Amino acid sequence: MTLSRYPEGRLRADDFKIETGAIPEVAEGSFLVRNLVVSVDPMLRIFIDRKPLGISSMPSLPLGATIPGAAVGEVVESRHPDYQPGDIVEGRFGWQDHAVSNGQGVNRVPRGLGGVENALGIGGLPGFTAYIGLETAGGVKPGHTFLVSGAAGAVGSAVGSLIRARGGRAVGIVGGEDKRRYLLDEVGYDAVADRLSPDFHAQLAQALPNGANVYFDNVGGPLLAEMMPYVAFGGLVLICGLMSQYQDGGAGGDRDNLPSVLHAVMGKGIRIESFSQYGRDALRPAFEAEITDLLAKRSIKPLVHIVDGLERLPQAQIDLFENSTTGKVVVRVAEAGAR
Amino acid sequence: MTLSRYPEGRLRADDFKIETGAIPEVAEGSFLVRNLVVSVDPMLRIFIDRKPLGISSMPSLPLGATIPGAAVGEVVESRHPDYQPGDIVEGRFGWQDHAVSNGQGVNRVPRGLGGVENALGIGGLPGFTAYIGLETAGGVKPGHTFLVSGAAGAVGSAVGSLIRARGGRAVGIVGGEDKRRYLLDEVGYDAVADRLSPDFHAQLAQALPNGANVYFDNVGGPLLAEMMPYVAFGGLVLICGLMSQYQDGGAGGDRDNLPSVLHAVMGKGIRIESFSQYGRDALRPAFEAEITDLLAKRSIKPLVHIVDGLERLPQAQIDLFENSTTGKVVVRVAEAGAR
Repeated sequence: MTLSRYPEGRLRADDFKIETGAIPEVAEGSFLVRNLVVSVDPMLRIFIDRKPLGISSMPSLPLGATIPGAAVGEVVESRHPDYQPGDIVEGRFGWQDHAVSNGQGVNRVPRGLGGVENALGIGGLPGFTAYIGLETAGGVKPGHTFLVSGAAGAVGSAVGSLIRARGGRAVGIVGGEDKRRYLLDEVGYDAVADRLSPDFHAQLAQALPNGANVYFDNVGGPLLAEMMPYVAFGGLVLICGLMSQYQDGGAGGDRDNLPSVLHAVMGKGIRIESFSQYGRDALRPAFEAEITDLLAKRSIKPLVHIVDGLERLPQAQIDLFENSTTGKVVVRVAEAGAR
Repeated sequence: MTLSRYPEGRLRADDFKIETGAIPEVAEGSFLVRNLVVSVDPMLRIFIDRKPLGISSMPSLPLGATIPGAAVGEVVESRHPDYQPGDIVEGRFGWQDHAVSNGQGVNRVPRGLGGVENALGIGGLPGFTAYIGLETAGGVKPGHTFLVSGAAGAVGSAVGSLIRARGGRAVGIVGGEDKRRYLLDEVGYDAVADRLSPDFHAQLAQALPNGANVYFDNVGGPLLAEMMPYVAFGGLVLICGLMSQYQDGGAGGDRDNLPSVLHAVMGKGIRIESFSQYGRDALRPAFEAEITDLLAKRSIKPLVHIVDGLERLPQAQIDLFENSTTGKVVVRVAEAGAR
């Protein structure tokens, strides 16, 4: 699946194109992966933009290139000393059936994750993102409350699970009663406010009597400005994703939301920052140990939405924004062992 | 000088009122100060707002209360063991002739500052603000470039002087050629961009080939969004003041400037934070030592604009916003020793 044009505004199916080619040759030091499940992920939208995040120095993906999504696959041929046929690995193998890799950025899928699809959710990029975010926030401190936007998504449900497992208090923001119930009943959020409900602000005020010490934001845009009154003095706004901004070219709200955010930064000593997974590989073993342990104890019950067929990838990606699917969404492109 | 009404939008002279009363009694443990010079300061605008910074939990100043500005005065009567008549002290003595204090928040004016008015500028709140800001930014690191907005004001010129004295590189933003020349010739900025000039962005691009590691912002508003492209990867936006926002009730620009700022926070790993002087008194001796040393070596040549007469305080405060006076502005209300 390749990029046929740079998306303008909302994603369209014809931004993508299926192309068929020969299975790549495996050079010395490389191995061939047959993808099993491929990830769709809100942040992927950035990487296929003509100007990613509006930053001129960030190169855009060339038209015709394979969409660089994460995937879990099986090694089917190897000229790399560390990888053998049958190994199950995760990496940015792209939206395709087969990929060649030299091992860079590749993780072995740990045992104890359950289905391989979990290596793209709680045990993969979204889970590791949640983990690094909590690390950046200084961990889960006793008595601290986290507010999480986009809480029913792959990262939001992972961060809620981790906060709960570590004894913290998590308050989620979602759109819709079904997602609210899922987070309360399955993920274990302490409270969830539905932003589509007329008493959204009353729900927040009740859930956050002392404000949020950390606002873990997956959404950005005007919602961030709306949430600043709920962030406590000395609190942290941690930018994890900007779901609401990926498709609108930065148009934002119908007023300037920057001044009120800066007032809160100054008046309440609130810090705004982001974080990155890059260069944090040293934390990966601790992350995998925590997640497999929580899965074994059934403290995390991951929800993965599986769509079948490579050709369904564009629509699954579009649905992330249009219908904001609950839990992690992956597309299955092959059955394990079904060579 | 008291608050006669909460200002709506731009300050007006009749937001203030002169009132005459008896000189206060000095209780045991207190002392009486006769003010010599009184400070006008952009941030004072916050404290006289009906809703300071829009934060509902921050109490507003009661109507009829004395404007709580900083001042330097002479102790004229004391029932406090640590203060004797003739001592020159600085504190939030307010916009008035005489004030009674119990010593809380009071600083002795150090020797070596030159005129007492410097205790309201480079040696007082603006200088200490610049000092704490640099401390918050992690000091002046070799090879790091600071971008400073409102650079010709009391804080902006203090921070430029300190960066230069510590061997750092400072780039200023001002409005007007006279201020630009002042910063280059007198304060020692390495480069200054004039935001009223048509080639403002070309000036910035030339002055910041590798971007700014710290944006020391005294202005806020749409200018902050405009400056984000000049902040380097991993840089810091340090909110020191929001001069452009104090009078407009948070209306801001004609578009939503928040999304592009969040893009930069996420895409370039930029941090946004503020800082406070409160609780940082332990740094005061080091600050005073650095400033008096720089003054003695003539490495800092502070510019203070002195206006005469208590009745001119409202107009001096208004002029800060309307004409953005260069350097520090104080109002002289009495001559030292002229009792």
